[in-house]
Amino acid sequence: MPMVLFAAPALWDDYTEALPRALAEAGVAATIVTQAPDPAAVDYIVYAPSAPLQDFAPFTRAKAVLSLWAGVERIVGNASLTQPLCRMVDPWLTEGMVEWVVGHALRHHLGMDRHIVNPGHVWDQTCPPLARDRPVAMLGLGTLGLACARALQALHFPVTGWSRSPKDVPGLTCLQGEAGLEQALRGAQIVVTLLPRTPQTENLLNARTLALLPQGAAILNPGRGALIDDAALLAALDRGHIGHATLDTFRVEPLPPDHPFWAHPRVIVTPHIAADTRPASAARVIAENIRRGEAGEPFLHLVDRARGY
Amino acid sequence: MPMVLFAAPALWDDYTEALPRALAEAGVAATIVTQAPDPAAVDYIVYAPSAPLQDFAPFTRAKAVLSLWAGVERIVGNASLTQPLCRMVDPWLTEGMVEWVVGHALRHHLGMDRHIVNPGHVWDQTCPPLARDRPVAMLGLGTLGLACARALQALHFPVTGWSRSPKDVPGLTCLQGEAGLEQALRGAQIVVTLLPRTPQTENLLNARTLALLPQGAAILNPGRGALIDDAALLAALDRGHIGHATLDTFRVEPLPPDHPFWAHPRVIVTPHIAADTRPASAARVIAENIRRGEAGEPFLHLVDRARGY
Repeated sequence: MPMVLFAAPALWDDYTEALPRALAEAGVAATIVTQAPDPAAVDYIVYAPSAPLQDFAPFTRAKAVLSLWAGVERIVGNASLTQPLCRMVDPWLTEGMVEWVVGHALRHHLGMDRHIVNPGHVWDQTCPPLARDRPVAMLGLGTLGLACARALQALHFPVTGWSRSPKDVPGLTCLQGEAGLEQALRGAQIVVTLLPRTPQTENLLNARTLALLPQGAAILNPGRGALIDDAALLAALDRGHIGHATLDTFRVEPLPPDHPFWAHPRVIVTPHIAADTRPASAARVIAENIRRGEAGEPFLHLVDRARGY
Repeated sequence: MPMVLFAAPALWDDYTEALPRALAEAGVAATIVTQAPDPAAVDYIVYAPSAPLQDFAPFTRAKAVLSLWAGVERIVGNASLTQPLCRMVDPWLTEGMVEWVVGHALRHHLGMDRHIVNPGHVWDQTCPPLARDRPVAMLGLGTLGLACARALQALHFPVTGWSRSPKDVPGLTCLQGEAGLEQALRGAQIVVTLLPRTPQTENLLNARTLALLPQGAAILNPGRGALIDDAALLAALDRGHIGHATLDTFRVEPLPPDHPFWAHPRVIVTPHIAADTRPASAARVIAENIRRGEAGEPFLHLVDRARGY
């Protein structure tokens, strides 16, 4: 019977019931432990990149490290982690992300904030254009970016996708590379950043690329704080070139109380809630990967170390 | 060549170019006038219920009165209006309504307001449930209600539809009548009212029906102000039984400055912008009906005087 080390102590309460249930549903008999006096006895490590465990070398027999997080940038460079590393692609997390992105895209599009904060009780019937006249650039076309692009298209937003490497997605204009990024940004009134954090994506939105956007564009960042150069964004917001930013991810979290994003009139902070992992569905993904490992089948969502995600 | 009287002077600027273009596209040669010294020479009246024209008796030869508004409650009881009356069902108006309803449903669902107005800079990671766990009642299953129901279902909101008369819509639970209304409201965390204003729908949401909703439910009213008993809603909001209301339509518009909705902490007012008629697409609907009238084909969106819409 495989031994599963649940090595994300802060999350154990969420998975105490969900993980055994998911394993049972997957037909996998396993022993779940939260401590492993003998690391060599562990077959699978269920992990969160914030967990204290940092040295994976003693887990000589472990068949996989199964992350509960989608983003693995904190551990992908860990030299002791030589086991197969799988990231979380949780269908319910995707749904939550789609809700956040579509909701905040519509909020910007409809100009909701001036109705929500309207101390003068102004009855101003200025009407926004239709979504079909509000182009969106989706930076990142992984599971999350693609799901969000599809949901925005269903509401008639014209969506242009961009990714570092070429993608071919039916019904979606997909651009890539430097020239593609420039084209995607020049035409966008709303930009959504849903890229993994890698050395190549860090500060993707910087003074130069932000300047490509049309006057008044809005930015939604539910991806990773490091995708945006904070100082460049603040400068672009200050001079009104960027009309608004709704940010869910930050370089330091919780966002420090003195960070200028908090009080900036053109910034709304949401506290890294766009894509909450849902234990019930995440546990099913973990259980499926353990089932696959036991059956000798390929793991789902295996991280490519060279790409970093 | 038919004579078209454009009898909505306040809207003429919006249609000066759009209406001739739409008629040309429809292959209809017509004379458009904004004054008709000889009412008996008029073949079609393009109309807005707010227009000064109230006596339709002199238009003895008019084949139809074509409303630019979806809601015709102000003129449906006009005894002088004996000509066929068509209301506006503008595909772009429908799109705008879907955007407003989906946007504000997601705003409530995600609890956006506490991030938009967060003077204490509180980093509170309480996460909402998924849309799949947020039941919505759609009151009204006409063109607009149905389009909104479909868009909410696409985001996995469980939607229950209700209409006065029975409807059969594949993939949507459709309830009707008094018992159906009770069932729809008891299960709903978000209620959308998209019914026409008729004597039967006036005050549909009142003290008794609001009490059926679960504690904390939110109400979105982009339909008609008269669908809701204002005093009953304010009382339910005051005691917290209704958690929030976002209202786009009111008994008196603009909403008077002293109306308690403006300052109520649980109410957001949007200034009747949920469903703006879009001249380019509305003109195409008018032109198509004139084409049909000239070709002897049945009119689109003919109002049933008995039902009132």
